[in-house]
Amino acid sequence: MAKLYVIKIGGNIIDDEAKLASFLKEFASIEEKKILVHGGGKLATRLAEKLGIEQQLVDGRRITDAETLKIVTMVYAGFINKNIVAGLQANNCNAMGLCGADGDAILAHKRQHPVLDYGFVGDVDAINTELISGLLEKNIAVVFAPITHDQQGQLLNTNADTIAQEIARGMSELYDVQLIYSFEKSGVLLDANDDTTVIPEIKPSNYQQLKSKNKIFAGMIPKLDNAFAALKSGVDKVIIGKAENLKELINGSSGTTIINE
Amino acid sequence: MAKLYVIKIGGNIIDDEAKLASFLKEFASIEEKKILVHGGGKLATRLAEKLGIEQQLVDGRRITDAETLKIVTMVYAGFINKNIVAGLQANNCNAMGLCGADGDAILAHKRQHPVLDYGFVGDVDAINTELISGLLEKNIAVVFAPITHDQQGQLLNTNADTIAQEIARGMSELYDVQLIYSFEKSGVLLDANDDTTVIPEIKPSNYQQLKSKNKIFAGMIPKLDNAFAALKSGVDKVIIGKAENLKELINGSSGTTIINE
Repeated sequence: MAKLYVIKIGGNIIDDEAKLASFLKEFASIEEKKILVHGGGKLATRLAEKLGIEQQLVDGRRITDAETLKIVTMVYAGFINKNIVAGLQANNCNAMGLCGADGDAILAHKRQHPVLDYGFVGDVDAINTELISGLLEKNIAVVFAPITHDQQGQLLNTNADTIAQEIARGMSELYDVQLIYSFEKSGVLLDANDDTTVIPEIKPSNYQQLKSKNKIFAGMIPKLDNAFAALKSGVDKVIIGKAENLKELINGSSGTTIINE
Repeated sequence: MAKLYVIKIGGNIIDDEAKLASFLKEFASIEEKKILVHGGGKLATRLAEKLGIEQQLVDGRRITDAETLKIVTMVYAGFINKNIVAGLQANNCNAMGLCGADGDAILAHKRQHPVLDYGFVGDVDAINTELISGLLEKNIAVVFAPITHDQQGQLLNTNADTIAQEIARGMSELYDVQLIYSFEKSGVLLDANDDTTVIPEIKPSNYQQLKSKNKIFAGMIPKLDNAFAALKSGVDKVIIGKAENLKELINGSSGTTIINE
């Protein structure tokens, strides 16, 4: 099977014009099939503030009300997505920006929760692997904004880490998939404040050890649980590291690699 | 050759939720290949006002400065485009929303003018007919936002009427294209204030007559010149009429049909 990179970039890269430009150049130079999933960054929050739309938080979770959904659709699927695509085109990388409604690429449903109403937040049901592979086979890099739909006309705000994982899982039927989570740190760290303490490799066995010894920063646990879930469902390898080091993440000389035994 | 409808909807439909929903239902029911090109409506202007971004007008022409480009990219390629796509999906019409940067669908250049600087406004150079027909052949309706790119990383605000015409022209190499301009009036009117005075058919010969007798409302002349240019370059038929009457525009019982002799 051909290799496919599914790469997620976080908000800190999107908020930094120079870092984003340099990342897109690196991404464009990847010769294998590739998918980019982007988050939102601070733009949506800033726009909401300017428009006087208050962010509702319930138990620390942001609620996506109708006005917030409008803003994230504009910012994620409009401004960020189209600027990334134009940036890739400028680097001679043919790219296409989609949200989950486009071509029914990512079907989701509004999150049901016994107590909380998260608002217009989607949980993923299905990835349209036929559509996506059709584009990849035409050497088009697909760029996903974290907005899905429910096939009933409702757009839904959806976690970008989850979208990346679900795409990686779905596409692993057709490709050897490597899932890369790039963020502001150099990898999974033994000391959250010391970027030189990257754990180069985590396998299921030493993950349990590290967790039981509290060696892993609590904020990383959901990302790692996600990573192991992806491995279980067919993804070859998950790499976590710094977006600026994309080349090194791919060749294995930077970041944390998460693989099966 | 297979039939293809290229349908442009104006801002008055986009601004009216009920009219848009009813239009999308009609559009979804078209069995032939179809492309939708949408304009912007008042949303972008309202958002600019709320954010305190002043609209610059030079000689009555709106200038697209960097802040305005950001707004139209968010509103046209984000909010409007994705809601239209989700609405079509809900009507069992598989649709994909693109701007000109996506898949290099519409290449343009920043408008050059000896005196005026229009800002980030694009004039179309090329339509990627291979990409678009590839999607159409998979029974995907393509929905275009009026934003193009210059292959150098710059997004450009581009007239939706022009995009519709250029797409119709380009695609006429591969399909029997009918170009439909839908707007708030019932067609080309003899009396601009009387919706019952629709001219049912205009050919090049009677167009000259009508023009010389000043029978055609000045605001319609650019649209009609566009229509005849499209016919000259291979488009089968141009129909101008009311978006609410889409079915009747297609079967010829409403609107103004513009055809060659």
